[in-house]
Amino acid sequence: MRRKLKMGMLGGGPGAFIGEVHRKAARMDGFVDIVAGAFDIDPVKSHQMGKELNLDSSRVYDDYKKMIEGELAMDKKDRIDFVSITTPNNWHFPMARDFLKAGFHVMCEKPMTITVDEALELQKLVEETGKVFGLMHTYTGYPMAKLGKDLISKGELGNIRKIVVRYPQGWLTDALEKTGQMQASWRTDPKQTGAGGSIGDIGIHAANLAEYFTGLRINEISADITSFVEGRPVDDDANILLRFDSGAKGVLFCSQISVGEENDLAIWIYGTKKSLEWHQEEPNYLYVKEGNGPMQVWKRGNSYVAEMSEAAGRGTRLPSGHPEALLEAIANIYNNFGDTIRKREDNLDADEKLISDFPNVDDGVRGMKFIDTVIKNSKGNEKWTSI
Amino acid sequence: MRRKLKMGMLGGGPGAFIGEVHRKAARMDGFVDIVAGAFDIDPVKSHQMGKELNLDSSRVYDDYKKMIEGELAMDKKDRIDFVSITTPNNWHFPMARDFLKAGFHVMCEKPMTITVDEALELQKLVEETGKVFGLMHTYTGYPMAKLGKDLISKGELGNIRKIVVRYPQGWLTDALEKTGQMQASWRTDPKQTGAGGSIGDIGIHAANLAEYFTGLRINEISADITSFVEGRPVDDDANILLRFDSGAKGVLFCSQISVGEENDLAIWIYGTKKSLEWHQEEPNYLYVKEGNGPMQVWKRGNSYVAEMSEAAGRGTRLPSGHPEALLEAIANIYNNFGDTIRKREDNLDADEKLISDFPNVDDGVRGMKFIDTVIKNSKGNEKWTSI
Amino acid sequence: MRRKLKMGMLGGGPGAFIGEVHRKAARMDGFVDIVAGAFDIDPVKSHQMGKELNLDSSRVYDDYKKMIEGELAMDKKDRIDFVSITTPNNWHFPMARDFLKAGFHVMCEKPMTITVDEALELQKLVEETGKVFGLMHTYTGYPMAKLGKDLISKGELGNIRKIVVRYPQGWLTDALEKTGQMQASWRTDPKQTGAGGSIGDIGIHAANLAEYFTGLRINEISADITSFVEGRPVDDDANILLRFDSGAKGVLFCSQISVGEENDLAIWIYGTKKSLEWHQEEPNYLYVKEGNGPMQVWKRGNSYVAEMSEAAGRGTRLPSGHPEALLEAIANIYNNFGDTIRKREDNLDADEKLISDFPNVDDGVRGMKFIDTVIKNSKGNEKWTSI
Amino acid sequence: MRRKLKMGMLGGGPGAFIGEVHRKAARMDGFVDIVAGAFDIDPVKSHQMGKELNLDSSRVYDDYKKMIEGELAMDKKDRIDFVSITTPNNWHFPMARDFLKAGFHVMCEKPMTITVDEALELQKLVEETGKVFGLMHTYTGYPMAKLGKDLISKGELGNIRKIVVRYPQGWLTDALEKTGQMQASWRTDPKQTGAGGSIGDIGIHAANLAEYFTGLRINEISADITSFVEGRPVDDDANILLRFDSGAKGVLFCSQISVGEENDLAIWIYGTKKSLEWHQEEPNYLYVKEGNGPMQVWKRGNSYVAEMSEAAGRGTRLPSGHPEALLEAIANIYNNFGDTIRKREDNLDADEKLISDFPNVDDGVRGMKFIDTVIKNSKGNEKWTSI
Repeated sequence: MRRKLKMGMLGGGPGAFIGEVHRKAARMDGFVDIVAGAFDIDPVKSHQMGKELNLDSSRVYDDYKKMIEGELAMDKKDRIDFVSITTPNNWHFPMARDFLKAGFHVMCEKPMTITVDEALELQKLVEETGKVFGLMHTYTGYPMAKLGKDLISKGELGNIRKIVVRYPQGWLTDALEKTGQMQASWRTDPKQTGAGGSIGDIGIHAANLAEYFTGLRINEISADITSFVEGRPVDDDANILLRFDSGAKGVLFCSQISVGEENDLAIWIYGTKKSLEWHQEEPNYLYVKEGNGPMQVWKRGNSYVAEMSEAAGRGTRLPSGHPEALLEAIANIYNNFGDTIRKREDNLDADEKLISDFPNVDDGVRGMKFIDTVIKNSKGNEKWTSI
Repeated sequence: MRRKLKMGMLGGGPGAFIGEVHRKAARMDGFVDIVAGAFDIDPVKSHQMGKELNLDSSRVYDDYKKMIEGELAMDKKDRIDFVSITTPNNWHFPMARDFLKAGFHVMCEKPMTITVDEALELQKLVEETGKVFGLMHTYTGYPMAKLGKDLISKGELGNIRKIVVRYPQGWLTDALEKTGQMQASWRTDPKQTGAGGSIGDIGIHAANLAEYFTGLRINEISADITSFVEGRPVDDDANILLRFDSGAKGVLFCSQISVGEENDLAIWIYGTKKSLEWHQEEPNYLYVKEGNGPMQVWKRGNSYVAEMSEAAGRGTRLPSGHPEALLEAIANIYNNFGDTIRKREDNLDADEKLISDFPNVDDGVRGMKFIDTVIKNSKGNEKWTSI
Repeated sequence: MRRKLKMGMLGGGPGAFIGEVHRKAARMDGFVDIVAGAFDIDPVKSHQMGKELNLDSSRVYDDYKKMIEGELAMDKKDRIDFVSITTPNNWHFPMARDFLKAGFHVMCEKPMTITVDEALELQKLVEETGKVFGLMHTYTGYPMAKLGKDLISKGELGNIRKIVVRYPQGWLTDALEKTGQMQASWRTDPKQTGAGGSIGDIGIHAANLAEYFTGLRINEISADITSFVEGRPVDDDANILLRFDSGAKGVLFCSQISVGEENDLAIWIYGTKKSLEWHQEEPNYLYVKEGNGPMQVWKRGNSYVAEMSEAAGRGTRLPSGHPEALLEAIANIYNNFGDTIRKREDNLDADEKLISDFPNVDDGVRGMKFIDTVIKNSKGNEKWTSI
Repeated sequence: MRRKLKMGMLGGGPGAFIGEVHRKAARMDGFVDIVAGAFDIDPVKSHQMGKELNLDSSRVYDDYKKMIEGELAMDKKDRIDFVSITTPNNWHFPMARDFLKAGFHVMCEKPMTITVDEALELQKLVEETGKVFGLMHTYTGYPMAKLGKDLISKGELGNIRKIVVRYPQGWLTDALEKTGQMQASWRTDPKQTGAGGSIGDIGIHAANLAEYFTGLRINEISADITSFVEGRPVDDDANILLRFDSGAKGVLFCSQISVGEENDLAIWIYGTKKSLEWHQEEPNYLYVKEGNGPMQVWKRGNSYVAEMSEAAGRGTRLPSGHPEALLEAIANIYNNFGDTIRKREDNLDADEKLISDFPNVDDGVRGMKFIDTVIKNSKGNEKWTSI
């Protein structure tokens, strides 16, 4: 029996993209109610969204500080259990900090902060407050990513030698930000998005995915980042050589000017015994290859998948051949985050290892260091820079 | 502004498959609340499910008749707006009939009934009561199915000449029903599932999809149905030649003994100018082919899709490259069904043509006639039987 | 050590399609020399082709009868060993008959003849003369078709229950024959092509492939054939239900008006244990599926393929990942045909079972009966017609 | 009318891989006769191969120097026109040099030499002798590579911004060279293969392909090469950042320890308007993508391909849907090489631009500089090294 958690929301106002995605994912399984929010920097728009969501108007706030006040003023049992932060990046840090301090659990969009220092401060704060902190590295929620992780951790691939991870998009091929398009505007504005452009928006997803699958850590990089679109103050393309702590090597490239590509995150991992391949755009399949045997296509929803990976089985709703996709992956992250809260607060009987399978504040710190190191290396002449 | 509709549920108790699927889909977009239900033929299990769903126990009923009584006893504003029927097939007719008569809108799983006569009675009743009736032909909810339908209705393919539709599954390759598996048991029991096995369970989806895409009607068939698994009282495989009212020809085959296939519904439609191809297991792509030009892969979430098909655009939640899947397709059917209710009851301002895009009682009648005709033709020696 | 065989050719003049294909395939492995021919019904064109082929002009003939005379007039060691017949269909029978009678081995394009009676006569003649007769059912030459055959014959799939085979093309979507296009003209002219249109041109390939893979024999069919293009005297589309001698069921459909399809022959075979799938357009892969394990993609050129199928290994020239295609498949048929000749005439040391793996006069008889039965059934009202 | 050219061969003895590939490709179209050779460093094996090829034994030589003598001793009209060099790499230079000096045209396997100096000497010699020199960069022979090149040169993609090219193989995952396997042995022995392992064996194919498609030149690289297998004296994996002369950026990675990959050369090229993608293992398709329109799949053998690219049309033998593959790609290189010889010697009437479309000595020099620069950069600490 799972208690329905009460969720508050920051961002996700009219015209926003990722906020509504969080809402759909959080609602899907019936374990979360969205009850409060400060949805937009413009209070009028925030209230408009609250109305569309059929929220009690007293729980729709003008800004996030008033939301903290308002929620703290309520009976504990009526307050939100956690807040989801889905604003532009520059707001993540102050919001997360203040909600943690006020005693709320936090789910935060990536990148966690704008600077490494902020990230470290948040890491410290999570430890001090003991609150549950989730970071929305969306793609780790896919069952087949969990299967891949478990195949590797169980030694099926042998020792990992090489990792290739790519994340090409094409939506910023032209200067879309000059047309007033909301997403393009803030994501190419260093004040709102941080120092990284494509590297901060999607490159860290790729880096995080490589580490999630393998359990290895990137410890040196050599990078070549570019702003192909004239006048764009942040990078829109990045090519990076990777070295991992174990001696594994790799390549990571991401781009927002790869015209015609949509959201083509994909990963190839080569071990001494077998290799695997996974594509986000066709997430229900995991390819396993070996030297002298047929290629295997593992398909989500089958019992042989759940037998190899309890985490994949837990993150599966539909039988094989009935495809699941991105919203379900995000819902998986919400479910593990939620069960971790329930275990702490309600003594939910749940396997700690399984429910802790969601990206957290440590991933956030690693992500910020990754962005920082890539930008530093790109500017200088040294070949390798340590993270 | 959409009013949140209150949904009651029949079926979907512990161990059921499709009921929970309905719940996730109905919840996703935030426009439906599940508030009541008779979830299982066993009242104990019904209450257990109600508890898991965090429902008010007064709204969890022992059986569907008590649910009608209970809901009617409430203030109209608190009553369920509609009921979703997700029980084994034999219950569809009496439940739908009684809820319609009691003044509720109805969403019903397919096949609509067990016999053609029941289907005709329901059709009459829907007309008499004026209630909104939805039939869960799941696959028509996919945006790329809607795109295909619109490409055809706008004449992009020319006149349709040939249609191939297949629906192979492999889960009944062995006598799974003898192991006590719940799904296999009732779906191979003629008393609960009706006279058709694979033809009733999935063949009618294929027939419905062919008619949905093309707007044509199957009017003659020649069929060869088989029960490959010894002792199985219903068919588990069907091969059927199709003739459409327009003179188009076609092939439909479905199977539950196609070992290794999961849920491989796919359709090919050939016109005088172009053809198209769509696969349910990779639902985000629609292939358009012509005689002398590159094959086109239309991908969900792009503006060129929404420009060709308003219905596809309306049924899309996520940007291109961020895959959507089956739950979202079902949610689309719930949304159109729900908006049709809202338009009638709340004067929601919505395009009648767009919101009426969900399978209805007429599709249910056609489906029952299709099953009936296939079984009749299979038993006899005449080559062609009219539907 | 293989003797280089001397090949003569009938058809394959300027503008022809399949003749040059035979030449490339026959030359590829260095075991055949093309030394003589009557390449066109027009002697001028025949000599023009001979010149392009750098042939000795004394071996280029005005017609096939003169070719028989001319070759018989030479020393036996200089004569052609065999003739390849690549003319329009109506010539196959007289040419094959006369060359067999004159003591030559024969490779013949499909369909073998125009009528069943001719086919039976040829069958008798092959027996009487003891000459080697090959029939160009091209697609049986692919290594992965051989692998599929061997997987089935070794019992990997269990008992075969269902077979789906399709062969859609789109090149006759419009009345191409009215533009004077050579291929379209004779292939839609019953005098040259025979009574079957699409069914004779490609449908028999599909039927042959189903029998090749499974070793089963089609013994009853129910067919619906159509001429969609106005004024076309032969069918351009066919949908057929199949029943096999073992009790297996199936579907075969072929078409030349499936606009946008190229040469999309594909087959699915379902057994009690596993199933397989193969596509001619991507011939280097064979898909093997089972109920509870990953789908396997077997890839040409690997040792695990050769270990399962000696015939596939024998028909492979390049390592895995270095694709082979149609010409190589045809060359495989030539190689087995040639080695059968060498074994008889030169006592080549070769495994009879392996080298006899090429389509022969019995396949030709079955093909003609298949066409005949399909046309008969399509015209009448009986549901099933025996072959 | 094309004269049949007489080809001699160096290498390609018993157990060799690429020599027999050259033979099949050269024979296929009927324009080349293989008449002489020194097939193996062991004269006994050389003669054994000559016998298998049904060659006149007087044209089978003990070594390449005797072959030069022997051929020069013949009447000019009987001599070989050109020699194909398919030996281990260390022999390429002396053989090519001596045959050029003796007045023969040369087709040479890649890499052209062992050192940059040798390459430059060969370049000078080709200029001095005026002989035709072809380099077997196999993959440029594919029609769809030619289509890609022409799409780019005609401006369809706009300005090229980014290029990703990969070439993973897995066959050297283990220390295969220690088992005595012939290919593995010489390809990992620096004396025979040169200083580069994977980079020299396959990396230069990838670099060449990127330059072939785009017409751009790589002018700076940053590389990380590795020998993953213990004791292997050359690299078996390479990850490389690319900068092109135009300002385009890129990534190249190749590997022989990517277990489970076969020969997975693939390229992605992103322009300001469109992008393209091509995979060697499925060579008949070219994918063209844009920002707001369906992805296009261009398929070999169609008239729309030949209309866009005369070179692709010229390199096509079979109609659409009838797949072609690697041998045909190599045959295309032989055909253009051969026609260049015929144009010079026989005044063949042929379009200079079309027939000169084969890799030549300049590509060979660039390839050797690429290998050299990659190895140099990998050893040092400078980030970027110019080629």
